[in-house]
Amino acid sequence: MSETIIERSRLSSFVAAVFVKAGVPEDEAALIAESLTEADLTGVESHGVSRVPIYLKRIELGIVNAVAKLDIVADLPGALVLDGCNSMGIVTGVRAMDMAIDKAETSGSVFVTVRNSNHFGTAAFFTQRALARGMIGYAGSNAPSTMAPWGGIKPYMGTNPFSIAFPAGKEQPIVMDMATSVVAQGKIILAGKEGKPIPFGWAISKEGDPTDDPKTALEGTVLPFGGPKGYAVSLMLDVLSGVLSGAAFGPYLCNMWNDFKNPQNVGHYFTVLDVKKFLPLDEFKQKMDTMIRDIKTSPRAKGVEEIFLPGELEYRKREKRLAEGIPLGQKTFSDLAEIGARMNIHFS
Amino acid sequence: MSETIIERSRLSSFVAAVFVKAGVPEDEAALIAESLTEADLTGVESHGVSRVPIYLKRIELGIVNAVAKLDIVADLPGALVLDGCNSMGIVTGVRAMDMAIDKAETSGSVFVTVRNSNHFGTAAFFTQRALARGMIGYAGSNAPSTMAPWGGIKPYMGTNPFSIAFPAGKEQPIVMDMATSVVAQGKIILAGKEGKPIPFGWAISKEGDPTDDPKTALEGTVLPFGGPKGYAVSLMLDVLSGVLSGAAFGPYLCNMWNDFKNPQNVGHYFTVLDVKKFLPLDEFKQKMDTMIRDIKTSPRAKGVEEIFLPGELEYRKREKRLAEGIPLGQKTFSDLAEIGARMNIHFS
Repeated sequence: MSETIIERSRLSSFVAAVFVKAGVPEDEAALIAESLTEADLTGVESHGVSRVPIYLKRIELGIVNAVAKLDIVADLPGALVLDGCNSMGIVTGVRAMDMAIDKAETSGSVFVTVRNSNHFGTAAFFTQRALARGMIGYAGSNAPSTMAPWGGIKPYMGTNPFSIAFPAGKEQPIVMDMATSVVAQGKIILAGKEGKPIPFGWAISKEGDPTDDPKTALEGTVLPFGGPKGYAVSLMLDVLSGVLSGAAFGPYLCNMWNDFKNPQNVGHYFTVLDVKKFLPLDEFKQKMDTMIRDIKTSPRAKGVEEIFLPGELEYRKREKRLAEGIPLGQKTFSDLAEIGARMNIHFS
Repeated sequence: MSETIIERSRLSSFVAAVFVKAGVPEDEAALIAESLTEADLTGVESHGVSRVPIYLKRIELGIVNAVAKLDIVADLPGALVLDGCNSMGIVTGVRAMDMAIDKAETSGSVFVTVRNSNHFGTAAFFTQRALARGMIGYAGSNAPSTMAPWGGIKPYMGTNPFSIAFPAGKEQPIVMDMATSVVAQGKIILAGKEGKPIPFGWAISKEGDPTDDPKTALEGTVLPFGGPKGYAVSLMLDVLSGVLSGAAFGPYLCNMWNDFKNPQNVGHYFTVLDVKKFLPLDEFKQKMDTMIRDIKTSPRAKGVEEIFLPGELEYRKREKRLAEGIPLGQKTFSDLAEIGARMNIHFS
């Protein structure tokens, strides 16, 4: 499969220009471009610029508002209840997170729900915003139904992802970001786009049989990580993101990929914890460094070359791709080139 | 294996009397007895009255304080920072949770950390206290190191459990409670006590080999649920329960079962969300009922007779055991009988 290598800054400028042309304000387009290229930098191609065509299509069709608006439904001492007003999820998520970060300075902890939102990209994009302020960031979302309850064959929950980011001292922060399925559905979608098979164990067909075909998998149901426990975690995320926020939940949430009439009504929740309210920030950071170093030097199983902290592989890939450029798959590249040609924005 | 059937109320009275005799105030002994017998009622025998001997031993040795004390280190608009003063974890957990429930009425959301605590029994015992008030309860804890980081063979994290309880309307509430290992280590300890093998896949030996022997498993490392994802979740629980609270973390946390000189310094965290601050409570309950009914009637895979919500199997077992009595394994029964004889408290 041929790949095209492109610098992050050039890719980001192009993506921002595309969304500006579609009516998105410049600062908001910059956030969307930053989130998508950050995903590509860290190797999460499923949530990278391969999403430009679908995001753009929904804005152009008017199913997602080009100009973001975020309403405060309730402002409580330890919580915020927000309405995303059907804006771009990435922009809404950043604004919700930043409000929570400011508020946590006083409250110690802030829990935020967001209703009426859309797909918000990678969750880690939000949680890492808390790190520079010495805070812990948490983000979770629901997603269109693609995963059956444990024992079932018909999708009900989404692959409902979550991320948490912990500041460290001299070591890299710990940043976890995971779907509650064995893998993110985006990886199956991308495999389908790129014409590649998927490993058995990621999903089952609609009859409940194992499959390595992305198309059959997308018609069937993806599997939760860790069996019944992952099913429970996914359900938890759906209740907190969907039911509690007042957004849609389960199969009532509209599918970004094939419903072009209705807003998605995705729900999110965020939590920010201001570390220094719980213990001195330096003490926290030193202990995190101890934990990280302990784990890095822990005895390894046969055949294991290195033990990783959550987010470490992504960090390394990011450094490499910042230096060497981002490789784009053929389909993603041609999609972007086509959009560039249509919108008269230079790309390559 | 012979079993003895005993009524919940009789078992509970006996356990409370044991702890009162050991110097625990009556109301605190009642909470300990309630938590342990509740675990047995719901089929979580690993966290039931089989724990009486070890809890009692630590109180009698003076490594755990018989009379509970809970200090408020900081009281913030959205958070509480607490010090458990080396009291019984069950009592500390209930008091921390009840403080959070009261505070959530104003704050909407409260996040609580507890340092200097001890093993707190089942997490679901705390989270369910929020249900009657129309609130969502969350509880997490760290635990002595028994689980290696992914790719490793030497235990670092504990099987760090968490629970969340969601109120419903006419349906039973959803109550999830899980260890972040494939199974709770308590189940391996109990299998060892009762002389039963464990399934392969629960743990590996200290050389990294598969095992079905509880003793070999306890010398080795238990495995996280869902592989690297469960490892990440366990780590998250250790940072929030251990590092952020100012308690011990990883292998620095003392083992309840074999360290009889030092306090454990377990850490916990709790979250309470007051549903009515986010949306009308009736609307939330109706949506939960819809979700529960949808899942119960969802199409099933071949060979699956019923799809369960988290907590449903435990609820059914509880109903059955309330009616028919609690079956105690031979070792647990003889341990309790011995304690009864020694303390001159009638048991049988």
